[in-house]
Amino acid sequence: MIRITMYNEFYHEQHKPNVKAIYPNGMHAAIKEYLDSEGSFEPMRVCTLDMPECGLTEEVLDNTDVLLWWGHVKHDEVPDEVAERVVRHVKDGMGFIGLHSAHASKPFRTLMGTDSHLLRWRETGDLARIWTVDYAHPITNGLPDYFELEHEETYGEHFDIPQPDDLVFVTWFSGGEIFRSGCTFHRGQGRIFYFQPGHETFPTYYNENVRKVIANGIKWAYNPGRKSIGTGHFRIKPNIESEWAGELQENFTK
Amino acid sequence: MIRITMYNEFYHEQHKPNVKAIYPNGMHAAIKEYLDSEGSFEPMRVCTLDMPECGLTEEVLDNTDVLLWWGHVKHDEVPDEVAERVVRHVKDGMGFIGLHSAHASKPFRTLMGTDSHLLRWRETGDLARIWTVDYAHPITNGLPDYFELEHEETYGEHFDIPQPDDLVFVTWFSGGEIFRSGCTFHRGQGRIFYFQPGHETFPTYYNENVRKVIANGIKWAYNPGRKSIGTGHFRIKPNIESEWAGELQENFTK
Amino acid sequence: MIRITMYNEFYHEQHKPNVKAIYPNGMHAAIKEYLDSEGSFEPMRVCTLDMPECGLTEEVLDNTDVLLWWGHVKHDEVPDEVAERVVRHVKDGMGFIGLHSAHASKPFRTLMGTDSHLLRWRETGDLARIWTVDYAHPITNGLPDYFELEHEETYGEHFDIPQPDDLVFVTWFSGGEIFRSGCTFHRGQGRIFYFQPGHETFPTYYNENVRKVIANGIKWAYNPGRKSIGTGHFRIKPNIESEWAGELQENFTK
Amino acid sequence: MIRITMYNEFYHEQHKPNVKAIYPNGMHAAIKEYLDSEGSFEPMRVCTLDMPECGLTEEVLDNTDVLLWWGHVKHDEVPDEVAERVVRHVKDGMGFIGLHSAHASKPFRTLMGTDSHLLRWRETGDLARIWTVDYAHPITNGLPDYFELEHEETYGEHFDIPQPDDLVFVTWFSGGEIFRSGCTFHRGQGRIFYFQPGHETFPTYYNENVRKVIANGIKWAYNPGRKSIGTGHFRIKPNIESEWAGELQENFTK
Repeated sequence: MIRITMYNEFYHEQHKPNVKAIYPNGMHAAIKEYLDSEGSFEPMRVCTLDMPECGLTEEVLDNTDVLLWWGHVKHDEVPDEVAERVVRHVKDGMGFIGLHSAHASKPFRTLMGTDSHLLRWRETGDLARIWTVDYAHPITNGLPDYFELEHEETYGEHFDIPQPDDLVFVTWFSGGEIFRSGCTFHRGQGRIFYFQPGHETFPTYYNENVRKVIANGIKWAYNPGRKSIGTGHFRIKPNIESEWAGELQENFTK
Repeated sequence: MIRITMYNEFYHEQHKPNVKAIYPNGMHAAIKEYLDSEGSFEPMRVCTLDMPECGLTEEVLDNTDVLLWWGHVKHDEVPDEVAERVVRHVKDGMGFIGLHSAHASKPFRTLMGTDSHLLRWRETGDLARIWTVDYAHPITNGLPDYFELEHEETYGEHFDIPQPDDLVFVTWFSGGEIFRSGCTFHRGQGRIFYFQPGHETFPTYYNENVRKVIANGIKWAYNPGRKSIGTGHFRIKPNIESEWAGELQENFTK
Repeated sequence: MIRITMYNEFYHEQHKPNVKAIYPNGMHAAIKEYLDSEGSFEPMRVCTLDMPECGLTEEVLDNTDVLLWWGHVKHDEVPDEVAERVVRHVKDGMGFIGLHSAHASKPFRTLMGTDSHLLRWRETGDLARIWTVDYAHPITNGLPDYFELEHEETYGEHFDIPQPDDLVFVTWFSGGEIFRSGCTFHRGQGRIFYFQPGHETFPTYYNENVRKVIANGIKWAYNPGRKSIGTGHFRIKPNIESEWAGELQENFTK
Repeated sequence: MIRITMYNEFYHEQHKPNVKAIYPNGMHAAIKEYLDSEGSFEPMRVCTLDMPECGLTEEVLDNTDVLLWWGHVKHDEVPDEVAERVVRHVKDGMGFIGLHSAHASKPFRTLMGTDSHLLRWRETGDLARIWTVDYAHPITNGLPDYFELEHEETYGEHFDIPQPDDLVFVTWFSGGEIFRSGCTFHRGQGRIFYFQPGHETFPTYYNENVRKVIANGIKWAYNPGRKSIGTGHFRIKPNIESEWAGELQENFTK
């Protein structure tokens, strides 16, 4: 059973009546309800911004196979230390599922190496049609050629990410935009899946296809082969002594 | 100066009044007019289906740096021998620009290794909005974030190609489809660029942005470093004699 | 349980004493012994060149989730019809594991779209050191940073394949060559993994790490989400009638 | 003519007699000598660690099409502000050629999003054989199938980079290692090429093939289509007013 943790900013659901009406117990509750009953996962752990260290302690991450992340307007309130800890765990093999505005979160931006927070966006309730473009990809298992969300926040290109390792979904928005909405990346031992749908004012996380994509994404991102290593230094193995070795080694292992 | 040749099926323009009205001298003439004046290319050579060997003789291909291909309903009339010759030249370093329905042409299908002729399509004159998704790619030089074609044939996913090396453009169609409309591939020493717009009933090849994309594509596909090799066997260099070497070599070099 | 079939040319093991000494019941027997006991697979079915249709009937392929392929000097004796059948099943979602000289087999060559039979080679019993280059890839689960085979046939670049979707392993040979020895590709709904080690004169398929790679490769290539489709035409859905629709449709669905 | 700037740490050449003997005027001088006479470039500008702001002022970068970077043991002495400035210019379209230990430089590490400083290394003067693996890539123009450096510092996998967009070269080291020694990446509008050879104690930068690779890399990385934009905010175009727009915009444009 895969051990999953979701970080949810959990701000809109507590402060905005229109969001609370859709997700009375938080977006995480809608996702947890599905994943806990899906059959492949341990009961999902929930962490929120208002918890100490956002709930993302070393111990929690040590016991997390795949981390889901939802954040939108409070990215800056996640302490740098917590973001760096998440990045380190991803590099060491923890899967990362970036949901919706997680593209602008600190860990995702660091892992991309680009200005991944940059994109077009518009809140007009466009129809979103999510097209599968890679029929061989495990994240598409059980999904139709395309599926629709009656209303979603529009995200449009240019989305400033590196070329994804796999492009899985591309979304058509009724207002005229397209968006690479399902993308995968490898970073160190970690597997990252970014999936765009999930604006807080729409019931996206109750949609059966969205839920299936998230479950597939977690299964894909789960790396059972994680090596039991420390925090990154393990691969430095200078196998000779040289005039420079000491100085270099010191520099490399910082 | 890059030496370019365009193969055009040149059927519709001669037999369909509505197409002839747009392209009285053939689609190739519209493309030639632009490329010949662009400044980077030798005067474009034109080959058509009704020429002997489709005009694509060994000599013509030997003197072609980049080949443009437009075909739609007469793919099967291109002799297998001619298609195989084109494929061989691409592998040996000739660039290949597949325009519009060239996705279903014999050379392109062989080079992809997939059922690249398979896709959704519809002729309803949808608005096409071509989005740039890779800002660092040379084929996007001088292009805006997106540009529009008032009417185009709709091509929709799933487009059965391998994962492209670079995904350059994705088109939004007003009817609800998206399409990976600008894709690059390496095959042997050859560089391939597929670009979707260009249905014969619309004046697509007079569009300034389409023309710029084609010119950029040719420049990108031009491989000045082509090795002066024969037809593929050069890399087989068994450097020892062994019990099996003879038999294997015979098998490999067929 | 994943249903696997292995095609083995099964020629050397019957005709060459030095090979028979290593693999008295065929290389497939060594692989089957391991996979049947690994716990994830149905008992492996074996097909050989001397069976009618190489054993690869429509019915066998219909009941195969992942096909392993070993062939070396008798590629040409596999009937075109059988090779095309295999290719079609891969496109429709059957996994394909190309072992050793399968790079020159008819199905693999067709699926690559390149002269993938071309590479350097040498039978001098070089030491092969197989390096993992993508630590996040599922095919590397449980594998060390590198492992060695005391003797293997040397394969060297240039290996004329398209850019792999994922490059998983690169082999160092003591004679001075390197080779992209573990590569993945998507084709249609199918997942392909090519793995270089496995020359018939060496006991490679008894090596624990090689076996683990093969098992991992099968698990990765298994596509449980295969759509129950026919032979490729399903995605053509012209959704309007037009002057050209009939002619085009006829052309496309051939 | 392409405007190029090289940043060289320029420490070893001034303080280590064995390095000074090879590069009396610095490694940059050896590179400059070649590039200035190659015919495609403006005279190369040189910046060193001991210059104010490492010489990499806003004005210098504004007038640089492609930046070469060599650093080894003084990465930490490059001010964060300078490193961030370089990263920003790369994202805005300046090419970046990372030479040798530039893999551990601040700008490269940020652009990768991984622990790219991590790899195996050894200073024993191994023979390095650099193999071309992508025959269609422009960086390989005029290069042979492989070339050798009699002595180089050994870098070995695992090299903790993202999957490269293009893998161009892989190096075989006589001691048993392989290394993905020529890799390209797109980041924003910028093109990045990393090339491994170039240890300070060996005359690598006098090697004709190494020089050709560097010149090819610069030509490939040069993006004449750089958009005249500011520093990253240009793509944020909220085109409606909504309850959340203000708050979101503030967050995004930080």
